[in-house]
Formats: sequence, C-alpha cells, structure tokens
Amino acid sequence: MRFLRLTIAYEGTRYVGWQIQPNGVSIQLLLEKAWTAVTQETLRITASGRTDSGVHALAQVCSLCTHSQIAASKLIQALNANLPFDIRVLNVEEAPGNFHAIRDAVGKTYRYQIQTGRIQDLFQRHVRWFVPRNLDIEAMQEATQHIVGKHDFSSFEATGAAREDSIRTVRELTIQPFQSERFQFIDIEISADGFLYNMVRNIVGSLIVVGRERQGSAWIKTVMDARDRKQAGETAPAHGLFLVHVQYDW
Amino acid sequence: MRFLRLTIAYEGTRYVGWQIQPNGVSIQLLLEKAWTAVTQETLRITASGRTDSGVHALAQVCSLCTHSQIAASKLIQALNANLPFDIRVLNVEEAPGNFHAIRDAVGKTYRYQIQTGRIQDLFQRHVRWFVPRNLDIEAMQEATQHIVGKHDFSSFEATGAAREDSIRTVRELTIQPFQSERFQFIDIEISADGFLYNMVRNIVGSLIVVGRERQGSAWIKTVMDARDRKQAGETAPAHGLFLVHVQYDW
Repeated sequence: MRFLRLTIAYEGTRYVGWQIQPNGVSIQLLLEKAWTAVTQETLRITASGRTDSGVHALAQVCSLCTHSQIAASKLIQALNANLPFDIRVLNVEEAPGNFHAIRDAVGKTYRYQIQTGRIQDLFQRHVRWFVPRNLDIEAMQEATQHIVGKHDFSSFEATGAAREDSIRTVRELTIQPFQSERFQFIDIEISADGFLYNMVRNIVGSLIVVGRERQGSAWIKTVMDARDRKQAGETAPAHGLFLVHVQYDW
Repeated sequence: MRFLRLTIAYEGTRYVGWQIQPNGVSIQLLLEKAWTAVTQETLRITASGRTDSGVHALAQVCSLCTHSQIAASKLIQALNANLPFDIRVLNVEEAPGNFHAIRDAVGKTYRYQIQTGRIQDLFQRHVRWFVPRNLDIEAMQEATQHIVGKHDFSSFEATGAAREDSIRTVRELTIQPFQSERFQFIDIEISADGFLYNMVRNIVGSLIVVGRERQGSAWIKTVMDARDRKQAGETAPAHGLFLVHVQYDW
C-alpha cells in the first residue's frame, strides 16, 4: 500500500462543491472517476476540507491509499488527461504512512477576492465578489485586530454546524487593496489553525459592513463577544473564495 | 442627431465574434439589442474592427448615431443592465460629428497571452494559449526587430483576405515573460497603425516557431520577405488574443 498526497486546483463555478452529493457533479466524484480510469482501482479520495459550491482552490490537498504502482509523475499527466479543464492535478507525492489530509492538516490559508467600483471587471466575474461601492479599507484593516488571535468564532460559524468547539486561532489576516488601469480590487487573506463552517465568508461579510461604514471597526469585537451568528454581517458569496494553501508538519 | 463613442469589454469565448452572423450569437447583436431595449431605437453599432470568435476585448471602441437624448452616464448603467455579464459597457461619451469607429481609428494595440510549462493554469484557460514546453524568449525578442517598422505583412495575412494593400507600420512589439508562484506566462503586445486579418495571431504563431528553436530569429525576416502566408508559422488560437486599445486623434 502507498499513501499519496495530491495537490489539486479547481474552479468551483460548475460544481456542487468538493464533496460527492446526489444533486450534482462534485470535484471529488470527477477525481475519483479519473483515478479509476487511470488505475482501474475504485477508492475514496479525501480532501483537507470540503469546499462549497462555487468556491475555488489554488492548492487543495488530498490523501489516498492505493495499490497502484504507477509513478507519481506519470499519475499527474494521466489524471489530468481524464479530468475537465477546470480541475487540474498540480502535484502527486509519496506521503508518510497513514497520511490523512483532514486529520494531519495543521493550518490553512484562504483568500477572499473583492472588486469595488461601478462597473464589473467581467474577466473576474467568477472569481471575485463585485461590491459596487467604495469601501473604507482603513476601517476594515483596523477591524482585523479583533479577529487575529485565539478566539471563540461562534459568531462567524454557519448556523446548524455542530463542531465540538468553536475556538480557533487566526494567525494572520491581511486586507490588500490594489488596482488595474480601470478597476479597484481588494484581496483578504486569512490563515488559521482551522476554520469553522463558512467562517471566512462570514468574516468577510462583517468586514464589508465596516467597509460600508454602517458600523465602526470596534463593532467586530461586539459581534465576536456575542457568540451569536445573528449579530454578524451577511455571508459573502462563495465565488470570491479561494483555498490557497494547506499546511502539514512534514 | 448625436454621435456617441462606446468603450466596451467582452470575453469572446461564448460568441461567434463581434460581427452579426447567421450561425450564432455575436457581441454586436447583443449590444444592438440592448440599445433597442434601452432606447426603443433600432440602429447599427460599428466597432473599430471585427474580432473573431473567442477573441476578447479590454476596450473595443464603437460608434453610433442616435436620436436618443438619454445622458451618456445613464446609458452605461442601462445598457449593462441589458447585457450578459461577459459583455460590459465601460464608457459612453459624446463624439465629434460623423465619428466613425473604423474610419477614424489611427492605431490599435493587441495583446497575446501565453502560458508555458507542464500544467495549465486553469483560471486562465479561456484567456491564454497554453504552450506546454519551454520557449527561448530571448530568441523571440530578437526576432521582433524584423517585424517592427513599416513593412509588407502579406506573409502574416490570412489567405483569402483581400485588402487593397498589406503595408502596415508596427510601432511597438514587446515580449514580456513573468511568473506566478506556480506558472510561467508570456505577454506579447503589439501596436500598429492597422492590422491585416489574423495578423497578430500569425505573427505569434511564427514567434513560437522561433521560441521552440525550430528556426532562428532571422527566419522571421525570410518569412516576411517571402510575402507568402505559407512560409509563416501556424495561426495561434483565438482565445489568447485581446484587443487592448484603439487610438483616435481626438
């Protein structure tokens, strides 16, 4: 038996998300089908975490345990030949015994992409949330101080989720504005030891409330202290969200 | 009567090109329909030049002549509300009397986008030609000296095109490599007083022959001197091509 670590990228637009579901095509389904086409072996491929419909990945990490003896470098090309062009295998590596993409993950980085202004940059319409107004970026940046660190993030957890605990450590949270000749963009990048369900999209939705000057930056602390999802802003849409990096200790 | 100048952006992927055709949906068709929806007026909208199916525009310029009195700034929002998200009106301005987007154009800039390497950057698959090999960029850059200037570009003109003359002046031609964390890209930008049919895609196809070291950089001069389309490289695919800028004298 070999344990393998796959690094994959995908655009979530056309899919119901990572996980196999009865109601549509998932990335997991297509990846497992591609695996079977290449190796004639049926197996389960585990990702570091589910991503929702519309959410993208620059470097999702997956684990699997196989009897196949095909070399890792050959697997990259063969899997890609059996996948649609919006899913790409970037790397296949031998992993330590019992490697498990969920259990062994010690940190993740997500990026949330926003465009502001009056007219949408159509070339980014599937990968950036278009917020057609000016945002107070300094106020948003000021608000991040309340989020960084070890906190109870219940207020940013989707209702209905049932994790044992909602304490997470946000290691870094940056808000970076930049612009092209014609358009204004904001990238929000957030690294943590783990994330609650919808946590990034709920944090972004609340940062936008501050950016729109409907609340001051200290309001974020009030929201977090309340430990109540209903206090926070609306969930930002899925299509602006990227899983950027998953950290492992080896 | 008012003459208006429209600046529009579009992704060509889903369309048969700019020009109205019997066999599919064109950008011109949708823009003229949007105009009619907004103004109840049926008219012809002229672009600075046709773009082929799959070719994109960052700032195509169009002219029209209207009886409508709707303010230019209102037209931007109203037209966009009646267009799909892969076509955007960026600007509407009052133009001098008799402004004609084709006749009055004094120069154009195109960009051709390439990605090299082994694995495709899926997020650029509709806007970049994926050439899965290493290219000798210095040789390609050296070859540009034979293209810049006033020349007969028959060798880079699609066969079947019937222009009066094939002399054009290429004012600038730059080949710019850059990279992201994982991928290598090349942008080729070319400005001229005008372009023959398929000229940019044929120049790019020939530069790739040099980049792949199948021919030296001086071969480009041999091709041009031959004034024979059959001497040049294959036409680069449409989806890497962007109309970036159209120049007018006012």
